[in-house]
Parts: sequence; C-alpha cells; structure tokens
Amino acid sequence: MTMLSDLLSTVFDRRVRFTGPAGEDSRSTEELTDALVSAAGEISGRTLGGRILDRYDDMDDAEKRDFFRHLTTSMDIIPGDVRSSLARYEAEPSKSAYRAFLEAAEPRRQELIRRLNGVPGATGRLVNMRADLLRLTRNDASLAALDLDFRHLFASWFNRGFLVLRPISWESPAHILEKIIAYEAVHAIDSWDDLRRRLEPADRRCFAFFHPAMPDEPLIFVEVALTRGIAGSVQALLSEDRPVLASEEADTAVFYSISNCQAGLAGISFGNSLIKQVAADLSRELPGIKTFVTLSPIPGFAGWLATARPGANSPDDDTLRALGAYYLTAAKRPDGLPLDPVARFHLGNGALVHKIHAGADTSEKGRAQSHGLMVNYHYDLRKISENHERFATAHTVAMSSEIRSLSATAAKLMTEEAR
Amino acid sequence: MTMLSDLLSTVFDRRVRFTGPAGEDSRSTEELTDALVSAAGEISGRTLGGRILDRYDDMDDAEKRDFFRHLTTSMDIIPGDVRSSLARYEAEPSKSAYRAFLEAAEPRRQELIRRLNGVPGATGRLVNMRADLLRLTRNDASLAALDLDFRHLFASWFNRGFLVLRPISWESPAHILEKIIAYEAVHAIDSWDDLRRRLEPADRRCFAFFHPAMPDEPLIFVEVALTRGIAGSVQALLSEDRPVLASEEADTAVFYSISNCQAGLAGISFGNSLIKQVAADLSRELPGIKTFVTLSPIPGFAGWLATARPGANSPDDDTLRALGAYYLTAAKRPDGLPLDPVARFHLGNGALVHKIHAGADTSEKGRAQSHGLMVNYHYDLRKISENHERFATAHTVAMSSEIRSLSATAAKLMTEEAR
Amino acid sequence: MTMLSDLLSTVFDRRVRFTGPAGEDSRSTEELTDALVSAAGEISGRTLGGRILDRYDDMDDAEKRDFFRHLTTSMDIIPGDVRSSLARYEAEPSKSAYRAFLEAAEPRRQELIRRLNGVPGATGRLVNMRADLLRLTRNDASLAALDLDFRHLFASWFNRGFLVLRPISWESPAHILEKIIAYEAVHAIDSWDDLRRRLEPADRRCFAFFHPAMPDEPLIFVEVALTRGIAGSVQALLSEDRPVLASEEADTAVFYSISNCQAGLAGISFGNSLIKQVAADLSRELPGIKTFVTLSPIPGFAGWLATARPGANSPDDDTLRALGAYYLTAAKRPDGLPLDPVARFHLGNGALVHKIHAGADTSEKGRAQSHGLMVNYHYDLRKISENHERFATAHTVAMSSEIRSLSATAAKLMTEEAR
Amino acid sequence: MTMLSDLLSTVFDRRVRFTGPAGEDSRSTEELTDALVSAAGEISGRTLGGRILDRYDDMDDAEKRDFFRHLTTSMDIIPGDVRSSLARYEAEPSKSAYRAFLEAAEPRRQELIRRLNGVPGATGRLVNMRADLLRLTRNDASLAALDLDFRHLFASWFNRGFLVLRPISWESPAHILEKIIAYEAVHAIDSWDDLRRRLEPADRRCFAFFHPAMPDEPLIFVEVALTRGIAGSVQALLSEDRPVLASEEADTAVFYSISNCQAGLAGISFGNSLIKQVAADLSRELPGIKTFVTLSPIPGFAGWLATARPGANSPDDDTLRALGAYYLTAAKRPDGLPLDPVARFHLGNGALVHKIHAGADTSEKGRAQSHGLMVNYHYDLRKISENHERFATAHTVAMSSEIRSLSATAAKLMTEEAR
Repeated sequence: MTMLSDLLSTVFDRRVRFTGPAGEDSRSTEELTDALVSAAGEISGRTLGGRILDRYDDMDDAEKRDFFRHLTTSMDIIPGDVRSSLARYEAEPSKSAYRAFLEAAEPRRQELIRRLNGVPGATGRLVNMRADLLRLTRNDASLAALDLDFRHLFASWFNRGFLVLRPISWESPAHILEKIIAYEAVHAIDSWDDLRRRLEPADRRCFAFFHPAMPDEPLIFVEVALTRGIAGSVQALLSEDRPVLASEEADTAVFYSISNCQAGLAGISFGNSLIKQVAADLSRELPGIKTFVTLSPIPGFAGWLATARPGANSPDDDTLRALGAYYLTAAKRPDGLPLDPVARFHLGNGALVHKIHAGADTSEKGRAQSHGLMVNYHYDLRKISENHERFATAHTVAMSSEIRSLSATAAKLMTEEAR
Repeated sequence: MTMLSDLLSTVFDRRVRFTGPAGEDSRSTEELTDALVSAAGEISGRTLGGRILDRYDDMDDAEKRDFFRHLTTSMDIIPGDVRSSLARYEAEPSKSAYRAFLEAAEPRRQELIRRLNGVPGATGRLVNMRADLLRLTRNDASLAALDLDFRHLFASWFNRGFLVLRPISWESPAHILEKIIAYEAVHAIDSWDDLRRRLEPADRRCFAFFHPAMPDEPLIFVEVALTRGIAGSVQALLSEDRPVLASEEADTAVFYSISNCQAGLAGISFGNSLIKQVAADLSRELPGIKTFVTLSPIPGFAGWLATARPGANSPDDDTLRALGAYYLTAAKRPDGLPLDPVARFHLGNGALVHKIHAGADTSEKGRAQSHGLMVNYHYDLRKISENHERFATAHTVAMSSEIRSLSATAAKLMTEEAR
Repeated sequence: MTMLSDLLSTVFDRRVRFTGPAGEDSRSTEELTDALVSAAGEISGRTLGGRILDRYDDMDDAEKRDFFRHLTTSMDIIPGDVRSSLARYEAEPSKSAYRAFLEAAEPRRQELIRRLNGVPGATGRLVNMRADLLRLTRNDASLAALDLDFRHLFASWFNRGFLVLRPISWESPAHILEKIIAYEAVHAIDSWDDLRRRLEPADRRCFAFFHPAMPDEPLIFVEVALTRGIAGSVQALLSEDRPVLASEEADTAVFYSISNCQAGLAGISFGNSLIKQVAADLSRELPGIKTFVTLSPIPGFAGWLATARPGANSPDDDTLRALGAYYLTAAKRPDGLPLDPVARFHLGNGALVHKIHAGADTSEKGRAQSHGLMVNYHYDLRKISENHERFATAHTVAMSSEIRSLSATAAKLMTEEAR
Repeated sequence: MTMLSDLLSTVFDRRVRFTGPAGEDSRSTEELTDALVSAAGEISGRTLGGRILDRYDDMDDAEKRDFFRHLTTSMDIIPGDVRSSLARYEAEPSKSAYRAFLEAAEPRRQELIRRLNGVPGATGRLVNMRADLLRLTRNDASLAALDLDFRHLFASWFNRGFLVLRPISWESPAHILEKIIAYEAVHAIDSWDDLRRRLEPADRRCFAFFHPAMPDEPLIFVEVALTRGIAGSVQALLSEDRPVLASEEADTAVFYSISNCQAGLAGISFGNSLIKQVAADLSRELPGIKTFVTLSPIPGFAGWLATARPGANSPDDDTLRALGAYYLTAAKRPDGLPLDPVARFHLGNGALVHKIHAGADTSEKGRAQSHGLMVNYHYDLRKISENHERFATAHTVAMSSEIRSLSATAAKLMTEEAR
C-alpha cells in the first residue's frame, strides 16, 4: 500500500490550469450553466465550471436562492422528452434508444453538478453549496427536487467504498484538529488543552472518515474512551483528574461522542459504518477489549415525559431509569419506530439498549433534555447483523434483560397511573 | 497535504468484516441481487454484495452472460412506473413525487452496482466486470443497456476531480511497474531492462492517473522523452545507445506513447486531462521546456492511401509526407471529423498537426500501417482552448503552415491524378 | 525517494525487546555501567543499556551528579595504558598495536555512551542526559571532561549529513507545534492563535532541522516572513492587522527568529546550515525572492553603550543608529571578534551587516537591551563563502556602505566626545 | 510517527549547494585534505569536502592507494603531542587539558572523515571508500590503521539505534529490488520472476536494515519462508511448484538466506539484530508462528571431514548427519570457538543447533561444501539471552538433545576409527 500513500500525497494540489483568462466573462451565470451542460469538451468544461464556482462564492444569499431556482426550474426534466424516449425504448430496446431515455429521464442539473465536480477541488465546494441549499430553502418545497439531485450524486460519490478511516491523535495536523474542535457537537471542546486531554492519553482514541477529494475535511468522527467496565457518567469520563488507564488493561471501549461535520452531507449516512469499523479495528489492535458500548444522550426523554405523565411528581432515580427504559424501547412513532432519534440511529445499526444511568449527565443540557439520564447502546459484533435485520424488518428493539425488566416496571407504573 | 498521504496509506486494506458466516448462502445469485437492491440496511448490503462479487468471480463465461442477462431484463426500468410517477410529478411537483420519479426512471441495476461498490475493494472488481461485459457481449445489442448503466456510474466515479496524477519512475513499486510493462500498447516493453531504459535516464519521464479506490492499478499512462528539438524517429528516441540529455538542457517534451490500462473503463476519457496535466507539471518543474509535442502513429494512413490512390506508384518521401498531411487534415468521415482516430483524439484535445516525418517508424507495424510516417501533434498551452473550441464546434483542424502547405501539395497532386 | 518516507515511518517504534525480565537487577548502577562497557555481545548490551537508562530516569539531581562523577572518575583514560600502547605503536605500527592504542586513548565512558545509544529511542534520552550534566555541573570543572566526551560523540551523530530540514506549517502535527511554542526563544508565542498567525498566512514560513533518531523533537527552527522590501520593525512584521502578501509577490525573506531547541546539544552548531539551506530552498520555490536578511536583536548594545558613553545624553535616532553600527562592526573582544554574540553568529555564517533600524523593537526587552534598535544581516548567496572566509581568517566584518558610513560617523562622534 | 515518514521523504535530495564554482581548484588532493581538517568554518568545509569526494571518484586504483597512504602517514597521531598533552592532563585535569589530549590522541584523518560526511549524500560514498580500501590493501599492513579509523566511525554512525528495519515486498521500489537481486549471496536470484517468487507469495517475507543517510541502499537483508514444520531442504523450499501456505496457517518461520550488502561495512555487525527483530515482528504479526529457525549451509564441513577422516569411505546419510553434528558442536578453533563460521555467527547470537538434514542442499555448491548437509539453528526467543551469555563467556554450544546424541555417535565412531 506504499504506493497509495505516496501517490495521494500530491493529489489535490492547486495546479496550473488551462482556463484562459480567468476573470472576465460577460455571460450571466445562467448562461454559463447552460453552456456548461452543453459543452462538448472537457477543457471548456473545466474553465466554465471554475467560473461558475467562483461566481457562486461571491453570491449573497438572495443570489444563491436565485441560482438554485434557475437550476430547479430551467434544468428540470422535460416530461414530453421522457415520454417520447420511453415510448421509443419500449418499441425498440436498442442502445441508442436507452441512451436517449437515460438522458431525458435525468434532469440536466445532475449533469451540471457532475461537470462542476471536474474542477480541481470542487467536491468540497459542492458540499458547501448543498449546505447553503438546505439552510436557505428549508421551507421552500419548490427547491426540494434540487436537493434530491445533490443527494443522489453525493450518495454515489461518498460511497463507503471511497471513504477512508483515520485515527485522529495529538500527532495529527493542527489544521485538522482545529476542525475537530469546531465540529464537536455533543460535548463541546473548550480549548487546545481540552482537545489534548481527549486525544493524547493512552486510554483515549478518536477516528474520522475522510474522502480523498476533501483530504482536509473530516466527514464524521467518533471519540472513544477505553475503560474497565462500562462507564455510567460522562463527567467522570471526561474528568481532568481521572487516572489514565494503560490501553492493554481496558476491557471496554465507550463511544461517548459522535459528530457529523458536513451540513452539506445531511442524509448521507456514515455513522453506522464508522462505529462498526472502529470497533473492528480496536478489537484487532487491543484484543483485551471485549465490549463496545456508547454512552449516549436521550434527547427526547424530558419532552416525552412531560407529555406522558403530566403533573406527576419528580420521580426518584430508579423510577426515572425505568421510565427512560420504557421511553427508549416502547415509545414509538406512528411508523412503529422509536421516538428517540439517537435510539433509532443505534438500533438501526444493530446495537441493543444495554444499560441506563441516572445522574450520568449533570450538565445543564443533560438535565434539561433527559433529567440527567444517559444510556449505553451495546455493539455486540456477533449480533449486530441479526439485531439490525429484525429492527429493519419488524421494528423489533433489541435490549438487555435489565432494560426489559425496567421497561416492564415503568409500563406497569404508567398503567396504574393511567387508571 | 501531509495528512492525506498518511491517511490514505491504510485506506483500502482488507479489514475485519461484519459479514456473518461468509460461505454458504442457499439463495441463487439472482435472489441475492434482488435481496441486495431491496436491502434496508447497509450492513446486510455489504454482506450480500460481497457474496455476489465472490460468486461472480467463480463464474465461467456462460454464467456471466446469464448474470448480465438477469440484470438487463429483470432490473430494467418499468415503463408503467415511469409513466405514472411522471404524471404525478407533473401534477404535483413535490419532493416525494420527484423522489418517486427518480426511482422509477433509474433502472434498479444502477442501484445494484452502487451497492456492490460499497464492498471494500469492489471498484476494481466492477471495472473488471464491465470488461467482461464488453468482451462477452460485443454483438449482443440486448445487453447494451447494461453497459450504458455501468458507463454512467463510472463517469461519475472516475470524475477527473477524483483522479490522481503520479510520476512513474524506476523507484516506483514493482507491482505497479509490472503493470506498465503489461499495459504498454503502443511500443511494447520487452523486459525489465527495457522498462528501466524508459524510466531511469534523466531525459525520460512517465506519468499515470490513479483512482484512490484502485491504488494498485494505473488507469492510463503516458511516456515522455525530453529532447532538444522535435524528435522525428521513434527508433532513434528509444535507442539504447543514444546519449542521455540532462533534463535542464531539454527544450521539448515528446509524448511518444499513451496507453489505456483498463478495458472496463472504455469510453471514460482520461487522455485529454493526462497530457495537459503532464505538460503543465513539466513546464513548472523544467522551465526550459517550451514545446510539448507527441510523436504519434498514423494508424489509418496506409489503408486510406490504398483506396485513395489505387494502383499509384510508391511515392517518394516528400510525396508521402504530403499525402500524410492531407490524410490527417483533409480526409474526413461523413460527420466531418478526421478519418484518423489518433488525429481525432489529439485535435479534440486542442493540439495542432505540427510536423510529419518519413522513415520515423521503421518497425514492421509502422511500415504496414503508415509506410513509416509519424506525426507530431503540438500542445501549445496558450492555444489549446481555442483550437479545441473550434474543432468541437466547427470541426476546424488546427495545423502548422508547413502542414498546410504539404496538404495543399497533396491535394493538387491528387486532383491531377484524378483527371 | 518514495521508499525512504515509507521505510522511516516505522523506524523508531517501541518494539518487542529481548531483554529478559526487565525489572529487577540487584547490581548497582555503577556495576551495570561496568558490565555494559565490558559486555561481549549486543544482546546483553541492550538489556543492560535499557536498565541503566531506566535507572537514570528515576534519579534525583544528587544521584545524577554521583552518576556523572562515576563516569568521570572511574571510566577515564588510564595514562599508563595510553603510554605503553603508544610506545608499542611507535615501535611497531601494526593493526593490533594501533587498535590497542585507540582503545587506550579513548575513555571507556565514550564506549559506554555509544552502547547506551544502541537502546531503541536512546538518542533523545542521551541528549537530555547531557542537558542535565550542563545544568548540574556548570561550576564543576571536574566533570568537564565528561561533557567533552558527550560533545565529541554528538558532533558525529548530529553531523549535518544526518539532519533533515522540514517545513513547519499549520498542517504539521500538533505534538510538534506545541514544541515550537515551547522552544521559541526570541519573540515568545502566546497561544495557538498566535502560532497560527506565524504559520498559516501565505507570507509566513517556518523550517526546522530534525534528526531521524529523534523524529518528534525539532533541533532548531527559524521563522521567516516574506515581504516586499526589507522589514525594519518586528512589531509591524508580527502585527495581527497587517495585510497578507501573496508569496509570489514577495521579493525578500526576513529571518526574524531562530531558536535552538535542545539544551543538550549546546555547542553543536546547526544555525549556519539551517539559514543557508532555507535560503536555498526558498529561492528555488519562489524565484521572485532575491534578498535574504535577518531582522535581528542587538542584545549587547545597551550594556556596551552605558560603558562606552557614560553620562552621555540619550541620543536621537540617527545617532543611535550610528552608534549601533559602530558597536556591531567595530566593538571587539580581545580575540578580535565582535562583542555582540548575534553578530558573531551571522558574520561567522558569511552574512554582512546590512541595515540598522531605530524603533524597531519597541517591546520592553527590546528597549532594555538595545534602545529599540534592530539590525538586518544580509545573506547574499553569492558572497557568503567569501565573507565567511575573510571573517574566519582575518576577522574582517562585512558591511554595507550605509553601515560603514554610519559607523564612521559614530567613530568621529566618540572621538570628539573622548577629547 | 506520521511526522517522521513525512519529514524524511525529502531528506537527502540533491539541493542547491553553496559551493562556489564547483570545478577548478588548483590545489592537490593532499592540500585539499589538509585544508579540510584545518578549515575553521562549516561552509568552506562542505565545499572542500565535496571537491575531495569528487576527486576521489575520478581516481584509479593506484591513485586511491596513494590517497589512502597520504591519510595514513601524514594524518596519523603525533606521538609527541599525545605524550605532552597526556602529561598536562595528568598534572592538571582541566577541561582544556582534556580537550587537548582528545585532539592529540585522535588521528586527524578521523576528523577528516567526519567532515567529509558533512557533504550531502556522503555517507554512502564513504562506505564505498572503505570498500575500496579493503579491496586494495588486503595485504598492506601499513594501511590497516586507516581501516580501523573508518570502522571506529562507522560503528558509531551505523549504531543499531539509527537503523531502520523494513519489509521488502513485491510492492517495494524497483531500484531497491534490483539491489536485492544483486546482493543475494546465499541462493542466487536469477531474474525478476525468481525475485517475485521469493517476495509475493503469502508464505514469503523479506526484511532489510536501512540507514537514513543511505535510503536507497539496503545494508543487510534476510529472506524468510513461513512453513508448517521445520523445512529440511532448501530446494523444496524454493520450488516453483510448491503449494503456497496461507500465512495464518504457518507455525514456523525459516530464515533461509541472509546477505550483507555493503562490503564497506565489513565488521559492523547487523545480522544479530536483524534476525531477532524480524522474529519479534513476525511473532507479533502472526501469533501462530511459534518456531524461528534458520536453514543454513555448513560451509566448512567437507573440508574438515577430508582432514578428519582421510581415506574413509563415503558415509551413509545417518553417519553423515552425525559427523555434521559433531563438526558443528565439537570441532573447535584454538580459541575454543567452533570451526564453522556460520555456526559461530548463529551461536554467538544465542541460537542453538537444532536439527541436521542430509540431502538438504543438492546444488553443486551444497554437495561440494557439505555433502548436501544443512542445519537448522533455532532462535528460541526465551533462551537467546542465556545461550548467548554462555557462548560468549564459556564457549558453551547450545544444542538440541538430538544433535547431542548425533554428535556423541560421531565422536564414538571417530574414536573407534582413530584406534
């Protein structure tokens, strides 16, 4: 694999380009986009693409909205063309008929986006473009089609087969680390010193996915604590004073924070692969680690509880844990999936609800959203496939016997209260 | 760019997989493909995908043909679904309507191929699958649709933005170099010693494009000789005895061989980008190099000449060169493009026909296909865009005044002969 | 050079060792050192060496002093042996006689240090050992011999031929960057943000020397600002608000800070090579840069001035610059070399005294040591050798005509004052 | 360790040098060497050093001999200086006295060699210089002192702590691999195909030591076969037709060839470290491998046997093995060490004589030197230290009980024959 590391070291540099005079082009951006999808050759394509991306970078939000609207309306599919090419393909399933159908059935803006991606360094810019789109058009159904096109292409480009898992450590480049600080979404990182405490000790690990075309941008990362036994308090886990454990002595890996980094990749799922890949890598590196769990927030618990037990007294810790177990495993959406989004994510990955802890997140946020409760989801490498399958097909929630019994207790309590 | 080289060094290794018992699955391959496109989750998807690819590897040609036929027929678009979803989208251009249309208008086999690509290391296997498809179905129009689907996806995955240009040298890994030996298509490489003669001397260069998901497989490569003045004989260029030129003393880079490596990527064009990127890189590294030319074969000349001047005497060298110039610049296909395929390639890239040499390829092949003629196409970095544009839009062939005059001479001669 | 980068990536890791039970060894450290220099084989040597280094790490200062004393006294040369082996060599200049002399004439502690260096990762620990020695024995002449032995070996191990020049950037690993923050000796770096301001902008550079056996420890580094024209104020140079210059527009590289990192390498000179190597590399990367200067402090100026002009009024800026020029070029030590240590360093490297600035360092330290004066030493790549040679042989101070004239003005002034 | 791999990738490139006009210097080489050891500054030193090395490269053997003679005679120690500085140091053990003694007691040619090593890329050239010295002066005792000086410095520079162990594989750079072909000293490699057979299969490994200052030159390498059970025939081991074993199924690693690459490093021992490091690395990578043995030639056996049993009949295989066992373990030199050089090497490393095979090397060379016998030396990681210690101190030969019994049989036979 020597070659690869070497060959990729010079991949995405900024090279001399064949763009002709970069600056002035009197055509409107709309004209440029039309020219780009029609361009016969790659060369003019890259010039045009570069200009469009540069123009875009200079736009304000209103102009961006106009730009998106142009793509949505004037580069949509043309129903008549779809119908006639389809009819021809049905009549005569030839290569040229199929090609004509494929072209008609794909909106031209998809080809536009693909051509823009031919510009060196464009991939990250297109991801940011979609982030803008999501931000600017949240309530604008007329632009939803464009988002689906982006998503369709990104799902292909950010295929798991193209992603790279990398450890992030105190020896990682500073320009990557500052992004870890910026992107941490679960338990904020205060400073470089705080970051170092999460990366440097022998019982800490961090891993991220990267895409070769965006080598300076982590896509998603997970922070891991190596422990003896299963941690039940995130403050204890992150405490500055805790004794550091030699990594060989750990028997458990706790995934205590997982953060998506790119708003423009919303809906392209990596977390599933990330956790499982990290678990596999860790179990190979440190065979002593037998248990892989998360220490996860329960973001919807307090809200649900207020509705489910209006006016009830503040429960004691045991009752709280029972109610938490019930919420995670038995409170469902109309489609039969769990109410809690974090639960849906981990159960969908094939994890099971393992253990629940009171007083586990004593931060303000933790108390507000879940009365301090946190939960361990357990990634049991031997059962992931089965759990996943049963959750995906029958919405069956996998859980430990302890959780099952806690949930039953809560169900009984709530039935009694409901009388 | 430090991070990248490092991060990618471990990218595509064979990792512990979550596949469950790898071996036995009683379902037929057809059932597996149906299961894969329907699978709800990524996990079962990767298991299924791996099984399908392993099954494929064990198939003989007849079985492969059956496999392709299954994809073509039972995973095609369903016209009724396309029509009804299109009608709904026209009536109500909502997100869900658009999504339904996109799904109906894309054959399920495209999704199948995308999902197969989620298996680690799958990209190269899919490229080989398409190579099989092209080999096995050359005359089978019914499978042409499947090839278009592959091509559509590959054009997206092998986007120029994802490719990596790398020098190939005598310090490159042996397992890459043996592929250079194997793939050289223009002037065969006899042995490791012959290879070394093309890589090690100070006046030789070689560059290849790679894709990060196929790090051990060059996609296309070009061999370059650094010279003083424009070379007019490939045997002289490759002679073992020639004096080696210090690279700083060269004023010209001669692209004397360009070879595509992957049959499965037929129709995905890289050569254009490769030559221009190499020219740009070389002019940065060696500012003394001012001229970038090819030394190219003229594969269709002898055939054309036999038809154009039946019964004519063997022309002398000057006449031969004139006729060659005429053939390259004036002999056209019905669509107005030059007859010669190499000419179409370089002119399409924006090069111009610069100089023509008699006795330039004295090999048997060279004498048979072009009576020993070879041609220099000139890549003038300042004029590439313009040449390309004019060729793409008006089929205008760019040429030097010398070629123009030679071509005129031949035209006159042929007119006279035709009387 | 592919191979090297790869091969060295795993060099100095901590590997399984053949040390037998690491822990207990009832022998005293003195006995261990004696055993190590006498050990017949490498294997026992590495075990013993590891134990000695581990013991050393656990010593307090008093114990370290005892350890050094042991090496100095009981591992010194034995004059009788030197004399007899010398006599034998004189009588019969055979291989064995020469070998015996070499062994007798080298104190056994040199062999001890060499053998300690066979322990993986030992080089940095030995450098730290010498740092301890220098710290603990500053006034203890009896231990000076040991220091000379260290220095003799380090000069061989840290030979310029073994050092590696590396750019330090915002993409460098955090654990290296935190050392840059810690080691900066001239203009302190306050924070990671401050560091970023010195590394990330297009007009900033930093370079360090490393030794392959201490890959995580810079030995010396230099910070560079790319400017138009020669900078005359370090505060302006480091200002947060300054406009950033595109590197291609710079015509001058200003070396504004150079810091040694390893106390244990005192007396092993790298700065000379560093500046010249960096100048050479920069002039290759950015051909527009024609001038290489320092912006240097004048640490001894205020002290000298107080003695040279006791009771004189505070001079105006022009007079101050003249006196500064005089001090740098004409104030000499008894051995004929300049009084100012920074001047000795740069003049010894072949630079010339180029320009002097008033109000150039307005920090407290700057005003205290040099009344705010700073100086540019000019590294003129064409004249370095000649300047160096004349300074080394005849103590001739190279200077610009402006400095010469300023110095003459000051000489005249001081002569007048002296009347 | 990210940083290191990166930092070293650009280490030893050919940089712009500050050498002034490289070419002409009217001084004789002798004058240049005198100037170099006297030079005050590093700059002139590197220029001078470069010139001396360039001159050396152009010398024929006679001139080289003269050059060596100059170093030996005119840069030797000066006995009078040694004596007087020693007397002063005895009288007054000050720093300056010690420094003076160190300088006097070291021949100036050592300093010369050290300074030559400051020239970029010089280390390999100096190694080649010593190779010349050994080749040209084998019988010239008067130059032996110079060789000891080289050896003294090389032992310090090629300290185990500075060496890098690297796997050599079919993915290694071709310019390294061609050296493996050239340097293989035990079982010649015929061709690139033969090389590939030794590197590419899953049950083959190769490792080499490198020095950072000679990144393109392996110092020593070992070839390893992974097997089930202990191999007893080198032809079987290297057979093209053998089935390849999955590396996880191997229980034994057979070191079947170990080759020194640099004649100029004769006497600097690496093999010891190499085998043990490789054994440690393999046992970490492949925990199934429990046994580490060599399959070694017995180069002195046939010669010894001819002397020990003159006129005896050709023994049968069992007798031959017994005599081989006797030869390896009981036939000693006057100094008490085994007669066989390969035995001395492996026993000195702490291995034991494990098993002996008849018909194990059926090549012409194998039959001639040892009547086809080969031997396995066993590296038992738990006993290496103890075996080594006992061999080093008491010349005790470690052996298996089988070998002990075979040797006793042979002793008895020979005693009977001797009657």
